[in-house]
Amino acid sequence: MLDDIGRAAREASRMLAVTRSEQRNAALKAIAEALRANKDAIIAANEIDLENGKAAGLSAGLLDRLALNESRIEGMASGCEEVAGLLDPLGVVDYKYTNPAGIDIKRVRVPLGVIGIIYEARPNVTVDAAALCLKSGNAVILRGGKEAINSNITLSDIMRKAICDVGFDCNCIQLITDTSRRCAIELMQLSNHLDVLIPRGGAGLIKSVVENSKVPIIETGTGNCHAFIDETADVQMAAEIIYNAKCSRPSVCNALETLLVHEKAAEKALPVVAEKLRQKKVKIFGCETTRSILGQEVEPATEKEYETEFLDYVLAIKVVKDINEALDHIQRYSSGHSECIITQNKENAENFLHRVDSAAVYVNASTRFTDGNEFGFGAEIGISTQKLHARGPMGISQLTSMKYIIHGDGNIR
Amino acid sequence: MLDDIGRAAREASRMLAVTRSEQRNAALKAIAEALRANKDAIIAANEIDLENGKAAGLSAGLLDRLALNESRIEGMASGCEEVAGLLDPLGVVDYKYTNPAGIDIKRVRVPLGVIGIIYEARPNVTVDAAALCLKSGNAVILRGGKEAINSNITLSDIMRKAICDVGFDCNCIQLITDTSRRCAIELMQLSNHLDVLIPRGGAGLIKSVVENSKVPIIETGTGNCHAFIDETADVQMAAEIIYNAKCSRPSVCNALETLLVHEKAAEKALPVVAEKLRQKKVKIFGCETTRSILGQEVEPATEKEYETEFLDYVLAIKVVKDINEALDHIQRYSSGHSECIITQNKENAENFLHRVDSAAVYVNASTRFTDGNEFGFGAEIGISTQKLHARGPMGISQLTSMKYIIHGDGNIR
Repeated sequence: MLDDIGRAAREASRMLAVTRSEQRNAALKAIAEALRANKDAIIAANEIDLENGKAAGLSAGLLDRLALNESRIEGMASGCEEVAGLLDPLGVVDYKYTNPAGIDIKRVRVPLGVIGIIYEARPNVTVDAAALCLKSGNAVILRGGKEAINSNITLSDIMRKAICDVGFDCNCIQLITDTSRRCAIELMQLSNHLDVLIPRGGAGLIKSVVENSKVPIIETGTGNCHAFIDETADVQMAAEIIYNAKCSRPSVCNALETLLVHEKAAEKALPVVAEKLRQKKVKIFGCETTRSILGQEVEPATEKEYETEFLDYVLAIKVVKDINEALDHIQRYSSGHSECIITQNKENAENFLHRVDSAAVYVNASTRFTDGNEFGFGAEIGISTQKLHARGPMGISQLTSMKYIIHGDGNIR
Repeated sequence: MLDDIGRAAREASRMLAVTRSEQRNAALKAIAEALRANKDAIIAANEIDLENGKAAGLSAGLLDRLALNESRIEGMASGCEEVAGLLDPLGVVDYKYTNPAGIDIKRVRVPLGVIGIIYEARPNVTVDAAALCLKSGNAVILRGGKEAINSNITLSDIMRKAICDVGFDCNCIQLITDTSRRCAIELMQLSNHLDVLIPRGGAGLIKSVVENSKVPIIETGTGNCHAFIDETADVQMAAEIIYNAKCSRPSVCNALETLLVHEKAAEKALPVVAEKLRQKKVKIFGCETTRSILGQEVEPATEKEYETEFLDYVLAIKVVKDINEALDHIQRYSSGHSECIITQNKENAENFLHRVDSAAVYVNASTRFTDGNEFGFGAEIGISTQKLHARGPMGISQLTSMKYIIHGDGNIR
């Protein structure tokens, strides 16, 4: 069955690759209108998922991610309209060369082809991902979690009908309705039909995809993020940044997980930071020096805490003897997502920027900024923590490949 | 053992990532000098490989690939100097954005980190690949074929000593001396130490890497390339291009393998093309129409011939009823490397360029131009036939990743 879906996606992608920008934007607007027009059907399908979820004992957090209401549907619809408003990433020429033999070489942005998205309980991913793939000229195969299956089927049917009505092959968007693990593994083997597979979800999902996929993948969303307060830091600024990075939305991948503090700044900075974090009752694990400064109610930090992406009101703190120890700690424990230095010293700032090997490296700003919208890309499909193809927030440009177009006049080599 | 090699490469890559352009160029020049100074040792080691190869019954072609002599050593040395002369791909800023919150975002080119190269009998790959990785700030782990092991050990030792003498960690370049298949598979599992694995070699090697690798890979070098002579083609130009694409170097991936001819051009064009190909005694497999025009000494072409990358003086020919049938044939059989249309009709040319989904698409020029040097990149590490990360000839820019560097002044989100 997946083979048929893959074949249909490949076929649809050929047609989609040669559509004009206006046609793809019209399709996105048609989806937005259709979502609004069918909101009752979406809410009804979502209610079945919510009831099943409650019966299955899903947590309140998971049920919240699963829930759709009028305002969330409007959010998905206006999201599609925003994507329609972005500049077309296709057809952009980023390299030109006339070689000594006289041929004219141009490198042009083209779609990747067929993109697989494998995700969990959030049904809005169904619409967001489809919109970004459509905009960038890619056919998409969606595979969401079983918790959201009724919502996803309804959303997918609405989108397919909407694009079909404006002249697109409905198989530009396909949903896999078999939510078994066996079928997910099968999707990961579909290398003849899929150009890339992007997992969106928790660490368990990402790990399973990394281990099982024969399709090229882009790893996203694991963020064990660090901040380093150096000896010259403005303590007040440090406290504001740490509070924002840890507490503004602890469940997301760009939230802070470990704070490193220069030993010469620790006595002064730690009490101010801790005082601020108390507003959200942040639980702190600390090294021995941290505990001697903040008191023994701080629990001892071990290897385990430094390795953990808490995604909660929890922070690990370690006092280090200098910037080199901070860099070594980051090198060892970071997932390569976002790190930040708080400093008034330019040399330390440049040293940190140069030597930290992560997607986003900050001086005196919160790691929470690592986001496609904040970076000026419009919407994002995820945040890549790998180095191949795309790194950091992935917008529609990161969903493209390139092709060389060469004009000659009988040239031979 | 591979784990130690991987760890040492990662450590070396941290140092390498912060070297200046002049330092890396000096290291490349030191390698060039050392290769020249040690040419006798290289030739002596190579002779052992050649003797072992003869004893093992290697083909003349394979022995030729394996052989090093003074001029080939000079070629490797001057190759390193040419790479040193290329513009530094690192540090290039390709995106800038000041967001509404006031942070300054820059996207900067950085090394990928650690690159694995897995290849076959050609010992010059040992030097070429190491030079390109060094230039682009990447540590490299080389794993060549057992046929060339003595040459490779000598070349690797010379390069390691040369870069060490100019202050580099010698583990920027490492060679795996265990040439067993088990060890190759182990390398493909080294995902915690390798950022990318690039196979260079025949279809069997590529297939094994695709099937076994847990490390992100870049597929290179499979070229089932097509040319299409449309009804408006200049027959003389067509014959020259086909002859060049097929015969100038049939063993390489950008050589032509299948010729498609519009039925209205076939009677006129095929005899001229065939006459030209007779100079190199090219063996032709043809469809029924081709055989009715060129005679029954042309053997019948089947599915198998259309699928085959001959890499030899062999060509498949098919007469098609129009450009759409040509596009369908290419879509079905092409490996996505290089295709060409020969036409005097602009609309057909644009249609072909737009709709063929391959790395390089030509109008009125030979597919043999698909090459890093011809495309203006200087040297190349291979030709990617996948769409993720890099497509087509891969120069040093394609051996880089990116990193976002953000300057703030206490900004929070």
